[in-house]
Amino acid sequence: MKTLIKNGTVVNSTGTATADVLIDGETIAAVLAPGSSLLGFDVESNVDTVIDARGKYVIPGGIDAHTHMEMPFGGTNASDTFETGTRAAAWGGTTSIVDFVVQYAGENILDQYHLWHEKAAGNCAIDYGFHQILSDVQDSSLVAMDELLAEGVSSFKLFMAYKGVFLSDDGQITKAMQKAASNGSMIMMHAENGSVIDLLVQQAVAAGNTSPLYHGLTRPWQAEEEATHRAIMLANLTGAPLYVVHVSARQAVDQIAAARDNGQNVFGETCPQYLYLSLEEQLGAQSGEWGAFEGAKWVCSTPLRSRKEGHQHHMWQALRTNDIQMVSTDHCPFCMKGQKDMGLGDFSKIPNGIGSVEHRMDLLYQGVVDKKISLERWVEVTSTTPARMFGMYGKKGVIQPGADGDVVIYDPNGHTSIGLNKTHHMNMDYSAWEGFEIDGHVDTVISRGKVIVDDNRYVGTKGDGKYFKRGLSQYLI
Amino acid sequence: MKTLIKNGTVVNSTGTATADVLIDGETIAAVLAPGSSLLGFDVESNVDTVIDARGKYVIPGGIDAHTHMEMPFGGTNASDTFETGTRAAAWGGTTSIVDFVVQYAGENILDQYHLWHEKAAGNCAIDYGFHQILSDVQDSSLVAMDELLAEGVSSFKLFMAYKGVFLSDDGQITKAMQKAASNGSMIMMHAENGSVIDLLVQQAVAAGNTSPLYHGLTRPWQAEEEATHRAIMLANLTGAPLYVVHVSARQAVDQIAAARDNGQNVFGETCPQYLYLSLEEQLGAQSGEWGAFEGAKWVCSTPLRSRKEGHQHHMWQALRTNDIQMVSTDHCPFCMKGQKDMGLGDFSKIPNGIGSVEHRMDLLYQGVVDKKISLERWVEVTSTTPARMFGMYGKKGVIQPGADGDVVIYDPNGHTSIGLNKTHHMNMDYSAWEGFEIDGHVDTVISRGKVIVDDNRYVGTKGDGKYFKRGLSQYLI
Amino acid sequence: MKTLIKNGTVVNSTGTATADVLIDGETIAAVLAPGSSLLGFDVESNVDTVIDARGKYVIPGGIDAHTHMEMPFGGTNASDTFETGTRAAAWGGTTSIVDFVVQYAGENILDQYHLWHEKAAGNCAIDYGFHQILSDVQDSSLVAMDELLAEGVSSFKLFMAYKGVFLSDDGQITKAMQKAASNGSMIMMHAENGSVIDLLVQQAVAAGNTSPLYHGLTRPWQAEEEATHRAIMLANLTGAPLYVVHVSARQAVDQIAAARDNGQNVFGETCPQYLYLSLEEQLGAQSGEWGAFEGAKWVCSTPLRSRKEGHQHHMWQALRTNDIQMVSTDHCPFCMKGQKDMGLGDFSKIPNGIGSVEHRMDLLYQGVVDKKISLERWVEVTSTTPARMFGMYGKKGVIQPGADGDVVIYDPNGHTSIGLNKTHHMNMDYSAWEGFEIDGHVDTVISRGKVIVDDNRYVGTKGDGKYFKRGLSQYLI
Amino acid sequence: MKTLIKNGTVVNSTGTATADVLIDGETIAAVLAPGSSLLGFDVESNVDTVIDARGKYVIPGGIDAHTHMEMPFGGTNASDTFETGTRAAAWGGTTSIVDFVVQYAGENILDQYHLWHEKAAGNCAIDYGFHQILSDVQDSSLVAMDELLAEGVSSFKLFMAYKGVFLSDDGQITKAMQKAASNGSMIMMHAENGSVIDLLVQQAVAAGNTSPLYHGLTRPWQAEEEATHRAIMLANLTGAPLYVVHVSARQAVDQIAAARDNGQNVFGETCPQYLYLSLEEQLGAQSGEWGAFEGAKWVCSTPLRSRKEGHQHHMWQALRTNDIQMVSTDHCPFCMKGQKDMGLGDFSKIPNGIGSVEHRMDLLYQGVVDKKISLERWVEVTSTTPARMFGMYGKKGVIQPGADGDVVIYDPNGHTSIGLNKTHHMNMDYSAWEGFEIDGHVDTVISRGKVIVDDNRYVGTKGDGKYFKRGLSQYLI
Ligand SMILES: [Zn+2]
Ligand SMILES: [Zn+2]
Ligand SMILES: [Zn+2]
Ligand SMILES: [Zn+2]
Ligand SMILES: [Zn+2]
Ligand SMILES: [Zn+2]
Ligand SMILES: [Zn+2]
Ligand SMILES: [Zn+2]
Repeated sequence: MKTLIKNGTVVNSTGTATADVLIDGETIAAVLAPGSSLLGFDVESNVDTVIDARGKYVIPGGIDAHTHMEMPFGGTNASDTFETGTRAAAWGGTTSIVDFVVQYAGENILDQYHLWHEKAAGNCAIDYGFHQILSDVQDSSLVAMDELLAEGVSSFKLFMAYKGVFLSDDGQITKAMQKAASNGSMIMMHAENGSVIDLLVQQAVAAGNTSPLYHGLTRPWQAEEEATHRAIMLANLTGAPLYVVHVSARQAVDQIAAARDNGQNVFGETCPQYLYLSLEEQLGAQSGEWGAFEGAKWVCSTPLRSRKEGHQHHMWQALRTNDIQMVSTDHCPFCMKGQKDMGLGDFSKIPNGIGSVEHRMDLLYQGVVDKKISLERWVEVTSTTPARMFGMYGKKGVIQPGADGDVVIYDPNGHTSIGLNKTHHMNMDYSAWEGFEIDGHVDTVISRGKVIVDDNRYVGTKGDGKYFKRGLSQYLI
Repeated sequence: MKTLIKNGTVVNSTGTATADVLIDGETIAAVLAPGSSLLGFDVESNVDTVIDARGKYVIPGGIDAHTHMEMPFGGTNASDTFETGTRAAAWGGTTSIVDFVVQYAGENILDQYHLWHEKAAGNCAIDYGFHQILSDVQDSSLVAMDELLAEGVSSFKLFMAYKGVFLSDDGQITKAMQKAASNGSMIMMHAENGSVIDLLVQQAVAAGNTSPLYHGLTRPWQAEEEATHRAIMLANLTGAPLYVVHVSARQAVDQIAAARDNGQNVFGETCPQYLYLSLEEQLGAQSGEWGAFEGAKWVCSTPLRSRKEGHQHHMWQALRTNDIQMVSTDHCPFCMKGQKDMGLGDFSKIPNGIGSVEHRMDLLYQGVVDKKISLERWVEVTSTTPARMFGMYGKKGVIQPGADGDVVIYDPNGHTSIGLNKTHHMNMDYSAWEGFEIDGHVDTVISRGKVIVDDNRYVGTKGDGKYFKRGLSQYLI
Repeated sequence: MKTLIKNGTVVNSTGTATADVLIDGETIAAVLAPGSSLLGFDVESNVDTVIDARGKYVIPGGIDAHTHMEMPFGGTNASDTFETGTRAAAWGGTTSIVDFVVQYAGENILDQYHLWHEKAAGNCAIDYGFHQILSDVQDSSLVAMDELLAEGVSSFKLFMAYKGVFLSDDGQITKAMQKAASNGSMIMMHAENGSVIDLLVQQAVAAGNTSPLYHGLTRPWQAEEEATHRAIMLANLTGAPLYVVHVSARQAVDQIAAARDNGQNVFGETCPQYLYLSLEEQLGAQSGEWGAFEGAKWVCSTPLRSRKEGHQHHMWQALRTNDIQMVSTDHCPFCMKGQKDMGLGDFSKIPNGIGSVEHRMDLLYQGVVDKKISLERWVEVTSTTPARMFGMYGKKGVIQPGADGDVVIYDPNGHTSIGLNKTHHMNMDYSAWEGFEIDGHVDTVISRGKVIVDDNRYVGTKGDGKYFKRGLSQYLI
Repeated sequence: MKTLIKNGTVVNSTGTATADVLIDGETIAAVLAPGSSLLGFDVESNVDTVIDARGKYVIPGGIDAHTHMEMPFGGTNASDTFETGTRAAAWGGTTSIVDFVVQYAGENILDQYHLWHEKAAGNCAIDYGFHQILSDVQDSSLVAMDELLAEGVSSFKLFMAYKGVFLSDDGQITKAMQKAASNGSMIMMHAENGSVIDLLVQQAVAAGNTSPLYHGLTRPWQAEEEATHRAIMLANLTGAPLYVVHVSARQAVDQIAAARDNGQNVFGETCPQYLYLSLEEQLGAQSGEWGAFEGAKWVCSTPLRSRKEGHQHHMWQALRTNDIQMVSTDHCPFCMKGQKDMGLGDFSKIPNGIGSVEHRMDLLYQGVVDKKISLERWVEVTSTTPARMFGMYGKKGVIQPGADGDVVIYDPNGHTSIGLNKTHHMNMDYSAWEGFEIDGHVDTVISRGKVIVDDNRYVGTKGDGKYFKRGLSQYLI
C-alpha cells in the first residue's frame, strides 16, 4: 500500500513546510517538495492512494502517553477496554497510546505485565506501549525494572498517595530512582501527599461533607506542591530523570520550573481538564438529574483546581514557556450509572477518572485557535515531545523518512461539536466535555500507512494496533 | 545541479534520521528513506553528484546571527571584509550570517542600510541578512523601522552603553519597543549599564590601571545584570519581544530565565568565548611578545568573565536548559598590530571584538563530545533556533523540502586543530582560539545547492552569497 | 521639670512592660517597676507632674523620617511651613521629623542646607533633623557629603526621576554611593525610571488623557520595580547602604526582599497612602465639586497603585515580614485651590504630594486594631526603626534612661475621627484622609520632657523643637 | 537582696544604653540613668551589693531553648544531668534553658512530663522550662497538647526522622499542626527525611562505609531541604506556626526565607556547630588516639555540613538577615569512652549529640568580634528572640522593670580559652570546642537576683533554678 498525501501543510514542532508525504507500506518513505514528482518521476501515478491535503495540516499522529484502559480500580474497571478506548483515540487523531500496567501491592510485576499484553493484544485500533506502575517498591521490583527495560518498558510510575494500594514511601522511591539513574529509565510520579489527603478525606467524611466538591477540597494544592518538591529533591539526590504526571497546581509548576532552571531533568505533564475545567464550575456543578453529585463526572486525581486561584491560566502559560512539556489525558473513564454512583453519599468512593482520549488533539487545537499556543507547539506537546520523552522518536512523533506512517490530516476549516450525541466514541454514559465546540476537525487518520478514520467513518479493524518497544528517553538534557 | 547526499545521519533539533537528502538546484527537493530509490525510481542515477555521508552528520548549515564584517569602530574597521569573513564562515560550516548595519548617532538609517548592501553585494561566500543598529532613537528611527521591515530587516539593535556613540536612553528604548510591539519586529539589546561603566573606566585609567585585564574589571557583572533586567522590564511594559545579545554573566542569565518563566518573550544569546574563555586566563594573560597586553586579544564587550565566579559553567547549563536559546559569535576581529595595539597604555582604546565566525560550529560540536549538550541541541542552538528567532525558518535552519540547499556534512571521526598556522581563514594576525582541538571536522559545505567547501578546499566563488529578506520571528510564544 | 508617667503599658519594639517612666528635665531618668517608689523612696512625691497612664500605652514619640515642609516645587511651596507642619505632627503623636533639604540642579548644597536651618530655626513644635537631597551629583557634591556628615546629616537622597530637576544618572549615583560606602552614610533613593515616565506622560497628554488618573497610569509599577532593582544593583556594586523611599509597588518590594535575603543592606519605606489608598478609589475619584479632578488630592509620586493588582495587601504583608522596615509620610501638602488646581487640564502640572504628617501614628495604630500588625511592630515601624535607620537611636525611638523625654500616651479606648472639620491641623484646604475613623487616640504628647499636646489642646510653643545631629545608621547588618 | 549594677553598657536587641540596673529581690526594679541616684535619692547606699560594670556589657541572661539534659538515647543517657548541665550553662552566661521532655512511641505523654519535672526539680542551677516531644502523634497526643499548654508547655516537637522511635508521618504532623493552629502553640520540627536517610545509612553500612564521616554523607542536604519544605507546606495548609530546629543546610535556610517572605510564621534555629564546624574538618578528622573515629566527637543530627558547599558562610549571613532567628545549642553530650565508642565499627550506633551549652554565649560573641553579627544582634539571637519565640518575654530576654533579675556582665576586654583543661564544666571527657579562643569573658552571672557565677567561681547552689511556665509565642507576625 502506497499513499501520497499531497499539497498539505506539514507541521512539525519547529515550523511548517508545504510538502508531499509518501508512505510506502507502514513507513514514511519520503517528504517531497509539492508537485507529486521527483526529478521527473511521477510519484502520484505510482501510488495506490492519493490524498489531497490542500489547505489542511498534515501532522504526526497524536501520542497520548497516559491512559488507563480497562484499569481495575476500587472494585470496578475503567469503562473503556483496549478495543473501545483505542478506537475512540483513533477517532480523535491519536495514533499511539502508552498505557499503564498496574501492579497493586503484593502482585507480581512481570505477571501483570504479561496480563496487560493479553488484554491489549489483538484488540487495539492503534499502536500501544506500556509504562509499568510499581507499587510498594521491593528489591524484586528493582530486578523487574531491568527486565522490563529489555521488553521496551522504559518508564516506571510511582505513587506518593494511595497508601496500602499504590504508595511507595520515600526510601522505596529513592531505591527505584537509584535504579533508574543507573539503567537510564524514567521515573514517573503521581505527586500528591497521600498521608495528608487521607487525613483530610477522613475528616471531611466524618464532618458529613460528602459531595464531590470535597474531593477537590481535600486534595489542596499544598499536597501536590509538597509532593512535587519532594519528588524533585529525591531525583536531585539520586540523579534520576523525573516526569511528574497530571500536574494541576500552579505552585507545582513553579517547583518544576525551578528545578529545570537549575539543570535537573524534571518534566511535567498536564491534561486538558487542568487547562479548561475548574473546581468551581465542574466539581461544584449541580444538575437536575444528579443534584450536587453531578460533580462526580469530574472526580479525578489530581483534582480540578480553583479558577479563582488562577491555576488554569498559569497552566496555559507554562505550556507556552515549556515549564510543562506535554499534554496527555490520564484517560480513565467510568460511567455515572453503576460506577461513579458508588460514591453517592461518600465522595471518597467515587472511582477517580475522566475520559478524554478522544478529544485531546481537538481540545489542544482549540488552544491554537484561541492564541494560547502556537501551531508548532500544538504538535510538539501532543506528539513530538511525548515521542522523545518516552523513547519513541524516529518511529513516532515526526514526519520524516523511516518514521511509522502515523499521520493525521487536520482541517482548520472544519468544526467539531463534542457531546454524547454528537462525537462520542468512548464507552461512557456521559461526556466530561459536553458542549465544547472546536474550530477544527480530524479529517483522516492513518496508522502505520493504513487509513483507519476518514470522512467521519471508522474504517480500521480491531487489532490494527501493535505493541511497540520503547527505548530510553530522548528528551534528557 | 542535482545532488544526492546519501546514507548520512540527518540531524535536526528534535532528533536524527538515517535518510538521503536530494537537492535540486538551490533547494532541497526531498528527504528520502536511504537506498537512493523511490518507488523503484533510481534517484542516484538521475542526479549530477552523489555524496556518500555514511557515518557522518548531515546538518542544516550554521547560521551566525551576530557578525560585524568590516565594521567601523574607534577609528578603524573590523579586519574581516564581507569577502574574507564570509569565506572564513564557510570554512567552518556556517552558511548564513546576519550582520549589523551600523547607524552612529546623527547618521541616516536608510543611507546606512544601503551602504551596507553596497559593502556586501557581490562579495559574500554565503547568504547574508541584516539587523539594523539604531543609535539614539529619534522619531525618524521609528519610521525607518517600518521601512526596513519591508526590506526584510525585522530586528533592531539598541545599546544601553556607549554614550554619545550608540546609547539610547530608556525613553528612547521604550519608544522603539512600542514600535516593535506594534509592527512585530524584534528588539535586540546590548545590555550593559554604560553610565556606570564609563565611570569605572575613567576611574581605572586615572588610577593607572591600564592593562587589558581592567577592561574586564571595569565592566562588572552588576552592570550587565542591571541592564538586562532593565531591558526586560521595558519589554514587559511595552509588550515587545526582546533578544539580549552576547550574554556572559550568570546573573544576567537568571534574569532572562525569570522573565521567560513569567511568560515574557525574552531571549538570550551567548557566544563561544563566554562558554570557554575567562577573565583570569585570557584577559589576564601574559606573553613574551606582548606582556600583560596579551590580554588585548580577548577584549570584547560584554567582557570575558571570571571563572572563579562560575559564569562559564552556568552558561553551559543555561544552554542545556534553554534559558539561553542560541549561540552566535559577535564576530568582530581586529589585528593586534595596527589595531588592538592602539590601546597600549590605555585599555579603553583597544578596539572591542573577537573573531570566531570560522570556529563556532566546531567549538559547539566539542560541547557535544564533552557531553555538555546533546547532538540535537547543537543543531538547534547553531542553526534551527537562529533561523526561527530571526524569521528565516523554512528556507534556513532545517533540512526539509523547500528549504534552501544549505547543508553541512560533519564528520564525528575527523579532527580539527585550530590555530594561526593550522586552520585560520579569518583576516587576523592571531587566533583567539589558538590551540583548541576539536574532535570533529567540517567535511563538506553546501550553500543553496552548490558545494563551496570540500575536502579542506574552498571551491566557492566570491558573490555566491545572496541577501535574504527575513520575516518576523517564528520563535515567539 | 520632673514628670512621672505611672501605671502605663510601656511598649517597645520587642514587647511591653507595665512600668513607670520618670522624666527629669529633657531626659528620661528611669524606668521603674510600677508603684511610684524605689527602695522606699517616694518618687511620686518628688516630681512636678504625675500622669496616670493606667490602661494606656506609653510609647516613644513617633518619628516621621520623610517630610517636605514648605518645599518649593513646581512654582509653589508645600503648604505647611515648619511651624504649621510640625505642630500638626505633634497633634498626631509625632515628636521628631527628618525633613529634606532641597538642592535643585545648579544650587550650592551647603547654602541650601543653611537656608533650611533658617526656615526651621525657632519655628518648630518638635525636634527635627535633615536629610540632604543631592540633585545632579558633581564632584563638589561628594565633598559636601563629608561636610554635611559632620553637621549631623548622615543620609543623602538621590533621584532616578525628574530629569533636569533632580535626576542623577547612573554614573552620578554610583559616585555618590562610592562616597557613602566610604564615609558610612546612607543613600536614599527615589526609585522610578524618569526617562520612561517622561515619555509616557508626554504621550498621555498628547493623546488628551489629562485627568489625575493618568498620573497613576503613566507611572506604572514597571518603572518603580526597574529603578528599585537598578538602585539595588548599584548599591551591590559599591557596597553602599540603600534606603528606598515611598515604595508602593509589590514588585519593588520583591526586589528589596530578594536583596535583603542576599545579605545586602537594602531597606524600604512605605507610607500610609500605599497601605490604604488606591488608584481606582482615589486617583480615579469623581466629586461634585471637582469632577474627575477630585483625584488631584491624591497625586503623589510614587503614585497610588491599583488595588486590583494587590499592592496594598502585599504592602501590609511586607510590613509584617520586615521586607518593608518603616513607615514615613512623605508629607508634602498642597491645597486644591491655588495649588493642585494648577494642573486642571494637565495632570502633569499638579504639584505632587499628600499631607499625612498628623495622621501616621493613628493610621498605623488602626492596623494594630485590624490585626494587620502587632502592637510592638507599630512602635517599631513608626519610631524605633526610624531612629535606628537614621542614627538617632538612644536619644530617640526608645524609652530608656538617657533618651530624650519624647513620649506619647496613647489611649486604645479613645477614638479619633479624621477630617477637615474634625481633626485637621495641617495647612491644607482638604484632607486626604477625610472620613477615616481610628479606634484609638493620642492623649498626651511630651517632647523632651515638656507636655505639648494634652487633652485635645496644643500647649506647646513655636520653637520648642530643636535641630538634632544624627549619626550613622544603627540598623546595618 | 538588692543589687545595683552601675555604669555598664546595657545592651538590648535594638541598641545600647549607658545605665544602672537595680535588682530588688528576684526582679529588676529599675533601669536608671547612671549616677547611682534618683531625684537626689542615693540608690547606691540603699542596696546590698554594688557591681561596677564600667567598660562592660550588661545583658539579659542567655536563653538556650534547645537542650537535652540526661536524655535517654540509644541505650544510654546524655552525660549531663540537669545538675551538671545547668551549672555548665551558668558558667557560660546562660540563665535559662528550655529542655525537651521525651515521649518515645508508646509512652504516656503526661507521665513523661511529670518524670522530667522529677529529674529537674531541686537540681538546676538556673531556671528551666520544657518543650514536649511528641512521637507518633495519636488522638491522645492532641488532648495532651491542651493539658500541657495549661502547664506552661507551649511548644511541641515533632520528628520527620527516626522511624519507630520518634517519627510522625505527614498525616500525624498535620493533625498536631491543626491543634497548634487552634490552641496557639508552636510546632517545632526535626526536619530530615528519615525514610531516605535510613536507606542511605543501611546502604553505607552494607558497603562497609562505617566511619563517622559517613554519618554526614548519609544525611545529605537534600534530606534536610526536602523535610524543611514539607514541614513548611503542612504549616501553610494548617496555619500553624513552625519552628525548624538545628538548621544546618543553606538550602533549608532558603526554604525558610521564602516562606517568611511569603508571610508565613516560619522560624529557623541554628547552633554554634553549624556556624563554625564542618564535615571535612570535624566529621572527617583523624587523631592518634581514635584514628578516623575521632569524628565521632561531632556526630550530631542534622550533621555538620561541607564547608566546600558553603553552608557555614551562608548560615552567618542568614543570622544577619534574620532568615535564621536564633541560636540554641541542641546540647546533648556523650562521652567518647563508654558512649560514643558504642559506634566503633558502625557510625549509626554512635549516640548523636554535641555538648555546647557552656559556650554558646562566648562563641556567638566571637561573631561580634569577627564582625559577623552586631552587638545588638548577639543579644537578640541568644536571649531576646528565644524569650519572645517561646513565650517568656517580659520575665526573660530583656532588661526592664518587672523582668527577672537574670543578668550577665560580659567583659569585652577579657579572654576565654575553651578546652578540657581550661574552661570545661560539662560532664564530658572531651570538648567539641577544644582550642577555640574567645575575645571576651563572662564575668558575672546573676539569676533572679542572685549572683551564681563571679570572678571565675561558681557561687550558686543546686536548686537555685526554678521551673517557669511559658505562654504563647510573642514572635508571631
Ligand atoms: Zn495519578
Ligand atoms: Zn493516571
Ligand atoms: Zn554589543
Ligand atoms: Zn556585536
Ligand atoms: Zn520621592
Ligand atoms: Zn519625598
Ligand atoms: Zn533534632
Ligand atoms: Zn535536639
